[in-house]
Amino acid sequence: MKDRIIAACGQFPPQFGDIEGNLERICRMTEMSSADLIVFPELAISGYQFQNRDEALSLAIEIPGGREIDILQQAANDTDTHIVLGVAERSGESLFNSSLLIKPASSNIDNDDVVTIYRKLHLFDREKEIFDSGCDAPKAVDTAVGRIGMMICFDWIFPEVARVLALDGAQILCHPANLVLQYCQRAMFARSVENGVFSITCNRIGTESRLEKELTFTGSSQILGNRGEVLAQAGSDSEEIIRAEIEPALADNKMITDNNHILNDRRVEYYKMLISKDL
Amino acid sequence: MKDRIIAACGQFPPQFGDIEGNLERICRMTEMSSADLIVFPELAISGYQFQNRDEALSLAIEIPGGREIDILQQAANDTDTHIVLGVAERSGESLFNSSLLIKPASSNIDNDDVVTIYRKLHLFDREKEIFDSGCDAPKAVDTAVGRIGMMICFDWIFPEVARVLALDGAQILCHPANLVLQYCQRAMFARSVENGVFSITCNRIGTESRLEKELTFTGSSQILGNRGEVLAQAGSDSEEIIRAEIEPALADNKMITDNNHILNDRRVEYYKMLISKDL
Repeated sequence: MKDRIIAACGQFPPQFGDIEGNLERICRMTEMSSADLIVFPELAISGYQFQNRDEALSLAIEIPGGREIDILQQAANDTDTHIVLGVAERSGESLFNSSLLIKPASSNIDNDDVVTIYRKLHLFDREKEIFDSGCDAPKAVDTAVGRIGMMICFDWIFPEVARVLALDGAQILCHPANLVLQYCQRAMFARSVENGVFSITCNRIGTESRLEKELTFTGSSQILGNRGEVLAQAGSDSEEIIRAEIEPALADNKMITDNNHILNDRRVEYYKMLISKDL
Repeated sequence: MKDRIIAACGQFPPQFGDIEGNLERICRMTEMSSADLIVFPELAISGYQFQNRDEALSLAIEIPGGREIDILQQAANDTDTHIVLGVAERSGESLFNSSLLIKPASSNIDNDDVVTIYRKLHLFDREKEIFDSGCDAPKAVDTAVGRIGMMICFDWIFPEVARVLALDGAQILCHPANLVLQYCQRAMFARSVENGVFSITCNRIGTESRLEKELTFTGSSQILGNRGEVLAQAGSDSEEIIRAEIEPALADNKMITDNNHILNDRRVEYYKMLISKDL
């Protein structure tokens, strides 16, 4: 594993339905970034505002098997970059709002699955009409660029997601997003600080008006350090790559004073209500 | 219960060991605030930087029974104000960093305990040498000014505390603090937003230099709305009362879109790791 890596966000406006064009943009930005790890927005190759589930299904990709994965894998291999991006994922009869982690072949030393999938657990608003929600606990995964945990957009508002990932050893939260407000960007400060982890939120820009309600996305992608410091931040409406050099292992240090380990200090015996279904 | 209340913070510099003087200041600020609910800092009547446990014991109060409680209860009764403040609390052989909620007699309709105690669960740095940590889950309590949950200072960094309180129906987080950095004030935005609750963080000001390490506290007490908006904010070094009119019942609305209830949307079946003791 590298001690220090270049982490990046590829902030851009996915064009609805233009899978070829969006893939091309993602591959080009990956190359331009010269990064070890680059995060792209949620639903980055399909766009966001589906009219209905059928339309989303028609723009979804399958894993493994999709031609789109081959293209992304090639880009990862060619540039030796780990790519995280959001996609609409079809699996049998199911349709998920997923995030993929695609490792370059050179880094896949254990010869395990090259593509890691996280299926969004907490669907936002109309997404509930379009997608099935994920049915697996968030899990961190070891890579040559650090131990990575993925979460997607609205997952931010549930502190449980980042916490479970941190407890599973995540050093870097990779967080594709399609945000129309700026609450998340402010709140991710807390996610990094309370868990002592790096976080990379890549939000899209641009406007979609395929439904009555027009959506304008707020960009402001950001890379935060393991103590919440802003290492890089994008503008709210500019297509751009932001980059920061980070040392993932710093996130293993959970001591914030000589006497306080922010994970071991938890008093879990008093947290039972957190996993109760009854409100 | 009142529909709308005046909530306040009494930000001041407690003088170490001057119990009479600090109590007098608290009573005067309570009167000046004309508030329904006022929150004071952590360890507001003793000061913070104890040399050792014995010194803290000598400045601790007992509940019920302490003369200090009588004085505070009188102030609450005279002004019809609910008072929250931090104290060093002795109970048998134990010593806690506690927060008290003192209800005015007029509002104590059920004739139950007038003083509610929360004992800090997560002790900060040297506090571990001085205090015993609390051994009860955080619990919200109904009052004439809303359903109140208490947390103390460093508890902020554990999202579990505010979450447990919100799950227990807290509308207002009352949060006495002795903060030397400003991380907490920034992060409380997330606590309010992710739980849909009001939060009142009252931090102290001033400097203590009774040990080798001098501490300067950062004030900036704040009252946040149930969507994270800043309703009132104090300066970083001024003695002042800040006030905001709030409608506690707004915190019962957890719908942040037509389709998203921020507590019911939790996927608790995937959060089991949150209460596991094994890291």
